[in-house]
Amino acid sequence: MTVAEQMLATHPSAAAPDAALVRCIEACAECAQACTACADACLAEDAVQQLTTCIRKNLDCAQLCETTTAVMSRRTGSNAETVRATLEACRVACASCAAECEQHAEMHEHCRVCAQACRRCEEACRQLLTTL
Amino acid sequence: MTVAEQMLATHPSAAAPDAALVRCIEACAECAQACTACADACLAEDAVQQLTTCIRKNLDCAQLCETTTAVMSRRTGSNAETVRATLEACRVACASCAAECEQHAEMHEHCRVCAQACRRCEEACRQLLTTL
Amino acid sequence: MTVAEQMLATHPSAAAPDAALVRCIEACAECAQACTACADACLAEDAVQQLTTCIRKNLDCAQLCETTTAVMSRRTGSNAETVRATLEACRVACASCAAECEQHAEMHEHCRVCAQACRRCEEACRQLLTTL
Amino acid sequence: MTVAEQMLATHPSAAAPDAALVRCIEACAECAQACTACADACLAEDAVQQLTTCIRKNLDCAQLCETTTAVMSRRTGSNAETVRATLEACRVACASCAAECEQHAEMHEHCRVCAQACRRCEEACRQLLTTL
Repeated sequence: MTVAEQMLATHPSAAAPDAALVRCIEACAECAQACTACADACLAEDAVQQLTTCIRKNLDCAQLCETTTAVMSRRTGSNAETVRATLEACRVACASCAAECEQHAEMHEHCRVCAQACRRCEEACRQLLTTL
Repeated sequence: MTVAEQMLATHPSAAAPDAALVRCIEACAECAQACTACADACLAEDAVQQLTTCIRKNLDCAQLCETTTAVMSRRTGSNAETVRATLEACRVACASCAAECEQHAEMHEHCRVCAQACRRCEEACRQLLTTL
Repeated sequence: MTVAEQMLATHPSAAAPDAALVRCIEACAECAQACTACADACLAEDAVQQLTTCIRKNLDCAQLCETTTAVMSRRTGSNAETVRATLEACRVACASCAAECEQHAEMHEHCRVCAQACRRCEEACRQLLTTL
Repeated sequence: MTVAEQMLATHPSAAAPDAALVRCIEACAECAQACTACADACLAEDAVQQLTTCIRKNLDCAQLCETTTAVMSRRTGSNAETVRATLEACRVACASCAAECEQHAEMHEHCRVCAQACRRCEEACRQLLTTL
């Protein structure tokens, strides 16, 4: 069991562990770090001038993924509309960042790895949205 | 001129300063701090048990407002769909948190002040969305 | 009274409002936004290649200022060593970012405005540290 | 290879992959999520009144761990003093939160799991500090 799974399993108001929720929390945390690192890797490239939109989308996506990790980790009370709108914003940010990184994936390995993390996170948010 | 206005005015790709954008950035930054402080003030109340949903909504709202402050402060390239979805998530989180805080506003002054900050931020996001 | 002052004044465990604390919270929130905006403005400059260290320091500083805004806004219980170490990290990040931005201040107005916000925040953290 | 390792390995300015750095980034990301979840789990306990200091320390620690994840993920340019002060603040926040959670570990499983994540993160920050 990962730490995120253990934290969900030990929450006082937790029902049975929700696989789609665990996947979403872990994909968001992973994607946040990947996007932060990709923004910085793009910044260190000689071709940084061609990567400024990528950096901007990486930074937006990183922050939305961080926020979504936290919002999805909270189970007390209920904040259903906020949860849904947050997942939707995260899904959109991941799709936008993935599409941009994919354009640079052949030139820059960090963009290739980051695009994959974004696609996984986009899909995890989409899947979780279908269950809400 | 506030610092946020000066930063927008000195951005290389900035057009004329956009009043709705300035208002949104400042309302989000203010609301993020208010919600963080209100969550903590609720935690210090004897009646904390009655305020757990309020704390949870405060924390969700604080994080969405922080993220929105940052996403709206970026003007490089374009990330239109992400900007829109982020504003929408922030607007929803503010509305949800305001409605909760308003229920405690007569008992707890911090909830009254926080609810006002949330309503201003909700409105600033809504206004900015109409211009995009 | 600003919202941050009102939130402190209405906190159940608040003593008399602490001017150094208010100044620190507000300087951190202002500096976080300025650094986020300056990183993005640098990214949009033709000379972005000469500004990569500035962007990196802006991003580090923005995040430390955001975190410090939140940590300083919490008054429940006590977390004295963490408060002190957070203020110290924020002070160091602001000094480092200010020194970098000052080198570009004559060329780029956003760096000039951001450097001033960093210096104010550095001083506000330093002042608050002397009172703890 | 984890995503964080891949991102480090593909960074243009990366030297050989640094095991202590990878461990620190991953421990910080894990601890941020655990602390966010533990704060929320404490909030849902009937005994929330006895857990308010724990919630506060969880929230402080979560935010420092998030920030440290990002600061450590950036390798462009150099920001040595900020890196060191950030690691130190994170180490202190983890130690403080771990000590608090350990007091509730027998009563609350989420505090036990969270305390372990905090201790791992404290140690990973301490180890990385010795190599800088």
